[in-house]
Amino acid sequence: MSTFDQLWAELEPVGRHPGSGGYRRFAWTREDAALREWFAAAAAARGLDVTTDRAGNQWAWWGDPDANGPGVVTGSHLDSVPDGGAFDGPLGVISAFAALDGLRADGFVPARPVGVVSFGDEEGARFGVACAGSRLLTGALPADRALALRDGDGVTMANAMRSSGFAAGEAGRDEETLRRVGVFVELHVEQGRGLAGLDRPVAVGSSIWPHGRWRFELAGEANHAGTTALADRSDPMLDLAAAIVRARELAADFGVLATCGKIRVEPNGVNAIPSRVTGWLDARGADPDAVRAMVAEFRGTLPGRSVTEESWTDPTSFDSFLVSRLAVLLDRAPVLPTGAGHDAGILANAGVPAAMLFVRNPTGVSHSPDEHASRDDCLLGVHALAAVIRDLAG
Amino acid sequence: MSTFDQLWAELEPVGRHPGSGGYRRFAWTREDAALREWFAAAAAARGLDVTTDRAGNQWAWWGDPDANGPGVVTGSHLDSVPDGGAFDGPLGVISAFAALDGLRADGFVPARPVGVVSFGDEEGARFGVACAGSRLLTGALPADRALALRDGDGVTMANAMRSSGFAAGEAGRDEETLRRVGVFVELHVEQGRGLAGLDRPVAVGSSIWPHGRWRFELAGEANHAGTTALADRSDPMLDLAAAIVRARELAADFGVLATCGKIRVEPNGVNAIPSRVTGWLDARGADPDAVRAMVAEFRGTLPGRSVTEESWTDPTSFDSFLVSRLAVLLDRAPVLPTGAGHDAGILANAGVPAAMLFVRNPTGVSHSPDEHASRDDCLLGVHALAAVIRDLAG
Repeated sequence: MSTFDQLWAELEPVGRHPGSGGYRRFAWTREDAALREWFAAAAAARGLDVTTDRAGNQWAWWGDPDANGPGVVTGSHLDSVPDGGAFDGPLGVISAFAALDGLRADGFVPARPVGVVSFGDEEGARFGVACAGSRLLTGALPADRALALRDGDGVTMANAMRSSGFAAGEAGRDEETLRRVGVFVELHVEQGRGLAGLDRPVAVGSSIWPHGRWRFELAGEANHAGTTALADRSDPMLDLAAAIVRARELAADFGVLATCGKIRVEPNGVNAIPSRVTGWLDARGADPDAVRAMVAEFRGTLPGRSVTEESWTDPTSFDSFLVSRLAVLLDRAPVLPTGAGHDAGILANAGVPAAMLFVRNPTGVSHSPDEHASRDDCLLGVHALAAVIRDLAG
Repeated sequence: MSTFDQLWAELEPVGRHPGSGGYRRFAWTREDAALREWFAAAAAARGLDVTTDRAGNQWAWWGDPDANGPGVVTGSHLDSVPDGGAFDGPLGVISAFAALDGLRADGFVPARPVGVVSFGDEEGARFGVACAGSRLLTGALPADRALALRDGDGVTMANAMRSSGFAAGEAGRDEETLRRVGVFVELHVEQGRGLAGLDRPVAVGSSIWPHGRWRFELAGEANHAGTTALADRSDPMLDLAAAIVRARELAADFGVLATCGKIRVEPNGVNAIPSRVTGWLDARGADPDAVRAMVAEFRGTLPGRSVTEESWTDPTSFDSFLVSRLAVLLDRAPVLPTGAGHDAGILANAGVPAAMLFVRNPTGVSHSPDEHASRDDCLLGVHALAAVIRDLAG
């Protein structure tokens, strides 16, 4: 399994911030280009053909994807949230290559083509839409909407793609690529502590909670902090504070998760009452009606304010036959839902038989430099993934 | 008075943000360099000698500042808060040049040298310390502390100065420059509505409220917004919300002003519980004890959190003889205090006889693109300033 360590070491420095120790790997940036080069080199070193689909996702094929297909695909993503951990995404791509290496070393010859995929822009950290690469691929995110998305500096996705040498004008649902995917299994570090108490290193994912993102705009009146009487102020920071508190209260009331993790203050000066504060609400839960009801109540506490739904994903059940098959194959592995969105969910919603494997995360911490899985568990994950490929492509 | 309009038109586009319509003129940036070039050109066009002091402030002299002195100085600053207005600062510098033009056109010959000053970094927008230029000049801000200040990108003031070609190594209190300043009168747009109800275009400033800035650090635990149970969270955004609400409540209780206008969220991702939120508190009022007591209570609501005093300025009374003289000279102009800090206050605290003129601001709005004074009032301000210079330098 030494290829796992080698791949891990190659990827480790890319986009790592020296101050935070976390990763800043955002879509269509210099770091993203370095990750793409790494993927292409890892594929080339294994004699795999690499293609980039119309959504910018990279595919490496063992065998002709247009013959004896459709294929068995595994993989994940390489981008990160701001100051994210090393495992969320890359573990799935590295494990895919390492599993192939293991199968080849064992002399396994697949009866169907086997693909490794690296989806682009899974976290949506730059343009605000999660799983943008897989959504573009399936058409769940129309190309015109994707290309018009803007990052914090006002750069459109279209221009960011072009700056990276990608033909933005041809972006969109990619039938040819989708036809090649007979089944998709994504390995991912667990984000939560479901496995931590079970003494098991690997779980099979059963479903993804419904989740969405909403942007709320709180306009106020910019003014001087030192000269404007309290009674004369229209200070949107106070509205923000109330919204943050209310979101948490409502989440508890409705039995869902709600988070305000991103804030933009304009002009964000120490001695300036802000002209505008923009907040983002992330809400999810097992029950979509509860999530919707919670957000409706939240909207109700912001009369006259603009609240925009930036994304909504219905609950996703992975292919039940596939989930059962994998759980049995992996010594009756635990079967767990997750509150995190994944490209596997986007593919499942597009009709691709899909499932996930989760590798134990002792603290449950994710989206943080402290995100961790033990090397032993990671290698057990590679072993499990190899068994899955052998089973599905044999 | 047409030189006023010309100077205004020259300065108007520099550092103006096309989106907000406000100004982004921060210390030791490209915009700052353009402002400095403008000042030097305006001085050169009038045959005034320009010097830059050891703190980076620019001085233009009509007459030899080292003979027949000390001189009568007027001026203000050219930098801005983020998305600030066109008047806060530049009105004082433009009016100074325009007043000189008017006096010369009238054939006035000063008996003492007359100086026009443009103080650098008055707003503290980039490095967090207001009046950094005048504080450095007087030594109120020690050079080693100033040079080590960092902007939001981690750039030190020392490096920012060097990038702009300024000899940071020689920064510090400048005795030679201070010796030249016999009296300082700063004209400024009013920030508040003291004059709006009085049917008078110009007031004389009597004093500056005490004020300070505090930075509070709220550490939490970064985690995934979609997978971390509410009970397992350490979410600093909730602490921020409580701090914002509490600051406003305490301000009302203590009869002072308190503002949270600047926030930094790390990592600031939609689906990430923040690892850390940093907030800034601006507090001021007529009574320094009330301001101090309010901040002490605020600290008390943040046990175990780091709360750092970034700046504190004691109440400042302008020279009472000078204030009376100007009020009488200007047809018994109203005499008003202000809650905003000014370079005139820093000089007054360093023993320089100083005072201010305020030009009417109908809405009181400041630190905003909507900041405004009518052209007629601005020209009356120039007229008043010319009368002051004639009186003090005649």
